[in-house]
Amino acid sequence: MLFTDEYQLTMAQVYWRRGMHDQRCQFDYFFRKYPDYGEHQAGYCVFAGLGWLLDWMTETRFTSEDIEALASQRSAGGQPRFDPAFLEWLAVDGHFGDITIRSVPEGRVVHAHAPVAVIEGPLAMTQILETSLLNHLNYATLIATKASRVADNGRGRPVLEFGLRRGPSTGANAGVRAALIGGADFTSDVGISHVMGLDPKGTHAHSMVQAFMAMGEGELGAFRAYAEVYPDECTLLVDTIDSLESGIPNAITVFGELRQRGHKPFGIRLDSGDLAYLAIRAAQQLDEAGFDDVAIVLSSNLDELALWQILSQIEAEAPRYGLDPDALIGRLVYGVGTRLITSHGCSALGGVYKLVALEHEGVWRPAMKLSETPEKMPIPGRKRVWRLYDQRGLATADVVMGEDEEPDLDADIHINHPFRAAVGRTLAAGSVSAAEPLLEDVLVSGSRTNGRPSLDTMRDNRVADLERLDPGVRRLVNPHRYHVSLSDRVRRLQLDLIAEARNGT
Amino acid sequence: MLFTDEYQLTMAQVYWRRGMHDQRCQFDYFFRKYPDYGEHQAGYCVFAGLGWLLDWMTETRFTSEDIEALASQRSAGGQPRFDPAFLEWLAVDGHFGDITIRSVPEGRVVHAHAPVAVIEGPLAMTQILETSLLNHLNYATLIATKASRVADNGRGRPVLEFGLRRGPSTGANAGVRAALIGGADFTSDVGISHVMGLDPKGTHAHSMVQAFMAMGEGELGAFRAYAEVYPDECTLLVDTIDSLESGIPNAITVFGELRQRGHKPFGIRLDSGDLAYLAIRAAQQLDEAGFDDVAIVLSSNLDELALWQILSQIEAEAPRYGLDPDALIGRLVYGVGTRLITSHGCSALGGVYKLVALEHEGVWRPAMKLSETPEKMPIPGRKRVWRLYDQRGLATADVVMGEDEEPDLDADIHINHPFRAAVGRTLAAGSVSAAEPLLEDVLVSGSRTNGRPSLDTMRDNRVADLERLDPGVRRLVNPHRYHVSLSDRVRRLQLDLIAEARNGT
Repeated sequence: MLFTDEYQLTMAQVYWRRGMHDQRCQFDYFFRKYPDYGEHQAGYCVFAGLGWLLDWMTETRFTSEDIEALASQRSAGGQPRFDPAFLEWLAVDGHFGDITIRSVPEGRVVHAHAPVAVIEGPLAMTQILETSLLNHLNYATLIATKASRVADNGRGRPVLEFGLRRGPSTGANAGVRAALIGGADFTSDVGISHVMGLDPKGTHAHSMVQAFMAMGEGELGAFRAYAEVYPDECTLLVDTIDSLESGIPNAITVFGELRQRGHKPFGIRLDSGDLAYLAIRAAQQLDEAGFDDVAIVLSSNLDELALWQILSQIEAEAPRYGLDPDALIGRLVYGVGTRLITSHGCSALGGVYKLVALEHEGVWRPAMKLSETPEKMPIPGRKRVWRLYDQRGLATADVVMGEDEEPDLDADIHINHPFRAAVGRTLAAGSVSAAEPLLEDVLVSGSRTNGRPSLDTMRDNRVADLERLDPGVRRLVNPHRYHVSLSDRVRRLQLDLIAEARNGT
Repeated sequence: MLFTDEYQLTMAQVYWRRGMHDQRCQFDYFFRKYPDYGEHQAGYCVFAGLGWLLDWMTETRFTSEDIEALASQRSAGGQPRFDPAFLEWLAVDGHFGDITIRSVPEGRVVHAHAPVAVIEGPLAMTQILETSLLNHLNYATLIATKASRVADNGRGRPVLEFGLRRGPSTGANAGVRAALIGGADFTSDVGISHVMGLDPKGTHAHSMVQAFMAMGEGELGAFRAYAEVYPDECTLLVDTIDSLESGIPNAITVFGELRQRGHKPFGIRLDSGDLAYLAIRAAQQLDEAGFDDVAIVLSSNLDELALWQILSQIEAEAPRYGLDPDALIGRLVYGVGTRLITSHGCSALGGVYKLVALEHEGVWRPAMKLSETPEKMPIPGRKRVWRLYDQRGLATADVVMGEDEEPDLDADIHINHPFRAAVGRTLAAGSVSAAEPLLEDVLVSGSRTNGRPSLDTMRDNRVADLERLDPGVRRLVNPHRYHVSLSDRVRRLQLDLIAEARNGT
């Protein structure tokens, strides 16, 4: 439970001292900006991280060691920073059993400014939750989004997640899980594969070839040793010496021996150099040797942009070598490591957790924050989020409405820009084919109510949402801006509160 | 122990099948490129992550659950992927008790291409170690390096690490530890503060002000409530409504009340807007009210570049407002969050773990890897690394030498570029004032021999090394290239092995 920021605890003590700690409140989790990778940008995010957050919330309490650690803290004046009575309260009531969360399910496409999860509970513990919630959801959503982009630019070929070695300490496991939700088909991470019920994937390293070379058996000896142990799933890494001159010819020799013994070799892996060119030349050599069904695994600094470039180059170049580019692309497999697990180009999702309502004297009061920057104003009050689909069945806008509002599909629907006061849009009556509420109960008074969605369910969520996303919003570079909007009522509430706050300071 | 890549285990089984699993070998850990953040670049790294790696190595074994999970894996042909006899061996001998590590100590400055740690042990387990070792050392060194750059551009003012909420799941803890080694003075992370023996730092959030506003008590009410609980360490966040019009005037009111009651207020925090301008205006207001000793905490997307810009702007602008810029800078404190914990601009350190030697029939044989790219060739053989200091006491080069070589300071020392064959440099006899071996025993046959260096020791390592680093290598943008070189003997070995490998394929 000490996996939090100090200020959550010092604020909780202020609330406790004032008797506000059990007042019900609502925080919204949302992000303001899609990941911007520099040369390319996301137009949507894939939500992930919720499952492990809920695990953490339901398993974690203040232990006696935690309380002791807090009791040992001293203020600058030398006194204990935390009142023993507050710590006693924390030891007993310092859990998340009174918290209710409505959330978008994992794997779904989510958008900037619309609440992705709303958290309701007693003020002190809901405040203390902030750090861990953001920590779980921001990183996982960042990586799921990157994985979705990688898969979306890979023409349907398998994506293997290989990033553990460059991932952020034990946090890499959460990143791998998110990658599997977001678009990776498999991972090399043994532990997470077992947790997720997947077969872990891998080939071998240069070191294995080097070891056999140092013993005088050479690359061919290494390949034979590997093929002997894994005759039915033999993928050989061919670039330890020279891919075209040594690795592929040696692999072909070993594949021939496997075939003679009745086995089907799986593939070769290219891990350096000009991957598009080498894939073409490798395919030529393999085809000539009668191995046109052997996969070509590409790895080395892959991400969505690199894949897009490699596939474009193959399409342009393969015909000059007498190869069908579609057939070549159809045998590719991608090993995607560092750039996926660290979200290369954009290393953080700036998701925030903002107080939007507080119950006081039996009445829910909206909470507002002004700011030097209008984009930083959260949307006040308790609310629901509706996704509107057009007549083609594509998502056209996410609309934030009041708790008891519902879109009337038979009337014109006027929606407002989330922070530019004069900007709006009217969806004509009948133009919206369906309205879907996005937030579901996932935790009610501390108990999970969403079961534990399977990996397949979370992946299906993503696939279904991507199919209903405008291609312009999905595109690699400069995506269209998806509309997240406020209902007229929420917009009026926002303007009223801004005026009130500015006057009442 | 399943925190690893599948291929480590499949390779280990190949070694076991061939009876090579207990052959002694040496892997080197090193990185090839300093972090490049786009607009600015690192000229050095600060090494971190070793302590927690050694903890993991000495605490982790294959559990029966791990073995069961591996036993459940099936090959593409349907048979168990792992031989039961191999798994039995793994259950007994699958530990790191035979591994010896010599390493640069944590906190020290390290450079590209020179081994940072050399790992010696039996082939199978030393191979299996790869993933976790890289995972622990790459991320931590990346973050320690970023922290060092932040601190180096902050003119000696305190750096508070605030990044847990945007950090990578539980891995953020390792990042926070690295930040504390690399340059952060304190952190808001409660758990890690306790582990490292530091007081966790924090102020309060906007939500606290919002909560009091929603209850009709306003910002002033929130500030008073906070000051009442923390009268001796009161830092107030002033930008919930409007920093200059509301937050700072309200803070001054509360500070006055605190002073009347005999307390000394600590500071205000600015978290949005033009931080340089607001710091100047805040200082003016605080000075006029008699609080010229109150700290100004800056946060919001800070990193080394932002700090450099803010401090430059303060130096240029403060005099126009009648303020002494040095006095103003002397009251600043930096809260550095997202951009530190995620190493904004460069989200991975590409550290690698390469086989460099293998014992075979009682003889150590160097291991070589060729590659499409010459920079990717590791330096073969068992070796030591020496740091040479010039007559000013500044580090002038790190030289990789053979195991039994030692620099002769009384003779000319010829050193060679690590991968450009014809490039070298001669250090004239007498020009080198000292030669220091960089690698120390930290793990001998699975037992820790370096104690557990304290945080202060690791920080002292960094400070001492930075003082002996050429200012050009430390600089923010386009740093000088520090020389990492090979002795003549290591260079010859490398060239011989390249020729041998190219001929012997």
